Amino acid sequence: MSELRYHPFLETWVMTATHRQDRTFLPPLDFCPLCPTQAGGFPTEIPAEDFDIVVFENRFPSLRRNPEPPAVEGLAMAPVRPSSGVCEVVVYTSDHAGSFAELSLPKVERLVRVWKDRYTELSSIPEVEYVFIFENKGREIGVTLSHPHGQIYAYPYIPATLAQELASERNYWEATGTTLWDDWLGAELSDGRRVIAEDSEFVAVVPYFARYPYEVWVVARRGVRSLAGADEATLDALAEALRKVARAYDRLFGFSLPYVMAMHQEPAAAGYEFARLHVEFYPPHRTHDKLKYLAGSEAGAGAFINDTLPESSAARLRACVE
Amino acid sequence: MSELRYHPFLETWVMTATHRQDRTFLPPLDFCPLCPTQAGGFPTEIPAEDFDIVVFENRFPSLRRNPEPPAVEGLAMAPVRPSSGVCEVVVYTSDHAGSFAELSLPKVERLVRVWKDRYTELSSIPEVEYVFIFENKGREIGVTLSHPHGQIYAYPYIPATLAQELASERNYWEATGTTLWDDWLGAELSDGRRVIAEDSEFVAVVPYFARYPYEVWVVARRGVRSLAGADEATLDALAEALRKVARAYDRLFGFSLPYVMAMHQEPAAAGYEFARLHVEFYPPHRTHDKLKYLAGSEAGAGAFINDTLPESSAARLRACVE
Repeated sequence: MSELRYHPFLETWVMTATHRQDRTFLPPLDFCPLCPTQAGGFPTEIPAEDFDIVVFENRFPSLRRNPEPPAVEGLAMAPVRPSSGVCEVVVYTSDHAGSFAELSLPKVERLVRVWKDRYTELSSIPEVEYVFIFENKGREIGVTLSHPHGQIYAYPYIPATLAQELASERNYWEATGTTLWDDWLGAELSDGRRVIAEDSEFVAVVPYFARYPYEVWVVARRGVRSLAGADEATLDALAEALRKVARAYDRLFGFSLPYVMAMHQEPAAAGYEFARLHVEFYPPHRTHDKLKYLAGSEAGAGAFINDTLPESSAARLRACVE
Repeated sequence: MSELRYHPFLETWVMTATHRQDRTFLPPLDFCPLCPTQAGGFPTEIPAEDFDIVVFENRFPSLRRNPEPPAVEGLAMAPVRPSSGVCEVVVYTSDHAGSFAELSLPKVERLVRVWKDRYTELSSIPEVEYVFIFENKGREIGVTLSHPHGQIYAYPYIPATLAQELASERNYWEATGTTLWDDWLGAELSDGRRVIAEDSEFVAVVPYFARYPYEVWVVARRGVRSLAGADEATLDALAEALRKVARAYDRLFGFSLPYVMAMHQEPAAAGYEFARLHVEFYPPHRTHDKLKYLAGSEAGAGAFINDTLPESSAARLRACVE
């Protein structure tokens, strides 16, 4: 069963998706559903002996193109609706043991174009309000399949954190007459202490207000609002910047660093002219062997504690950039 | 170093607290800082051979009564301010091996009165805007000391999730002329499927819109906005309801269940007449051996996925209530 229930105290929707309890959980290597199907082997999700990059719909989706009607009626202040939308899996490579950081640059350039294709197509579905491209990497953040892959959720609403970001962008413009992204990026570049890499298209920076110890944002310098609006040079530069950050992460502690990678873009509908294409990385590690948890203050109040100084984290990460 | 940095894209503050990296991390039993100091033993945080309930200021606080000025200057759109406030530790018992669920009812009744005392006193500090009483329980959510204890953060601002809840309460009243807490609680009671325990003072319910698989809210039936406004009968009833939920949790899977317990009350300042005293529990388990992680959808977009049906979770929990 799958449905959206309204949370009236947070003014957003919660996805209920009970079939996900049965999803494949850390299968043995021989039974990885994201590997190519070998001749004579068990049929994986991908009926081909090899592939470059593959996208398919999640077998255990939180959102579906033609959802069942909700099984439980709503409350007056907490209505329910079908979980319309799309959940896709993006398999980066046929190599089970690799990772995003280990992909070649031409491969990441192709991946960015796959994302652009999916963003554009999914955004055109009438029910879809926000196309969210992301990657969960590493057991520490609950990844159930280790084969290198990312996901795309095409939500039928704008999720709470994204809605807040979009509102903040507009509020800032209304208060100042300038744009938050340009002002903030200008301040980071002129300060310089938290910038870990930059070129003419993107800046990679540990934000002044980082919530996670090794949080990095990769931000388009110019007013690109989405992949759909990005030209070839911007797409290539994004590939290079993301790969640079992921590779720096792997050098930071000497192991393949887990992270959440979240791409923020403009929503499917028009009216969000202050949005900016950017990617936020949140690694869960606060030291090489300790994790940051979202506990009482974060989960119960929404107040983040960052146990590191963003200036120090940035210096460490900058030293790891190739 | 410790300071508050403004997050302009989320319109809230982030606490930077670098000294916390050195905090005590899962010490061996003989060196538990929350045990009584034994004659001839090492000096713990509590210079007494025994105690009932002890409150003291956190040695590794995110917020302090007299903070240092910020070490790094702010940005125009991301100002910085001193981390004024108070972080207290509430040690529930001198018994290292116990847990909140295992405390006797009279003990929990005393603990609730300790919370009331601290809420009232901390709320009177001029810099304090919100007194947040909570407990992180279990290694799975990152607890660094296993001795049964909770914490209190007296924030100099209203954290984002709490601010959203307070705004939602007001928005609902403005839209309907009725109060969200009364309407929602009435709907839950008349439906009944998600209620796991109730008496004349409190209702324990898996909310219709639960974000976590075994989330439970313990909600005051009448318009009590805080512990400060709670009479003796209400305090006793709160103790009984919280203990009942914690004990049901321990029976659910046959082990002492980790959770975040978050008490929401009215802020220190007046003007929040729609707030309601309640306690939210978020256990991280989605099955006996699998955890729910806050990954891409939750951390990167703010969109929660609940892998269980609240009606089913409530039935399982209700069967565990003594």
